Amino acid sequence: MTHPVITAARFNEAGLIPAIAQQHDTGEVLMMAWMNAESIAESLSTGQVCYFSRSRGKLWRKGESSGHVQRLVEMRLDCDGDTLLLLVEQTGPACHTGAHNCFFRRVTKDGLEEIA
Amino acid sequence: MTHPVITAARFNEAGLIPAIAQQHDTGEVLMMAWMNAESIAESLSTGQVCYFSRSRGKLWRKGESSGHVQRLVEMRLDCDGDTLLLLVEQTGPACHTGAHNCFFRRVTKDGLEEIA
Repeated sequence: MTHPVITAARFNEAGLIPAIAQQHDTGEVLMMAWMNAESIAESLSTGQVCYFSRSRGKLWRKGESSGHVQRLVEMRLDCDGDTLLLLVEQTGPACHTGAHNCFFRRVTKDGLEEIA
Repeated sequence: MTHPVITAARFNEAGLIPAIAQQHDTGEVLMMAWMNAESIAESLSTGQVCYFSRSRGKLWRKGESSGHVQRLVEMRLDCDGDTLLLLVEQTGPACHTGAHNCFFRRVTKDGLEEIA
């Protein structure tokens, strides 16, 4: 049976919806990636976050190779159904660069600077 | 002069980039909307967040009619340049429904439930 969140979600033309991952207990915004109906269903059934990789064109089980998995604590759908918020428990760094989150470039008056 | 964040940003085919708004002092994720080069430049110069409304096809100065403005505290660009994180000071509710943030629908085992 299709979970109601998949019915309510407004996917884009590629069948994808943006998903924001946030560390559930600290509020740290970790990353934003994309999900399709299949990856939402898998995330809900396994409790481990699974995205859809646009570059590889296939499911992306977060941490499958790195071990940097995300346990799904809670999933939320926004008011108009076109964005998901995933409250997660992140193991290790979330970013493929090794940074704890992906938002480590701060915009300054005239440039970008890396923050820890 | 074009700000380096606009040069570094990877806009989609419609010239847009997703932007996550987060209350800077509480970590509450408020909403996700879209920005283009022009709205990024205006946000940086005025210090008030300006998005691009896809449905109306024009700049959307957040709170222009409702007064629910977002003062831009800090802007960050993610590791691969395709998502922005906006740390903001939100005045009033962020969501057009009047909810404080847009993520008020929690996914349950078999449905969606509204949370305060």
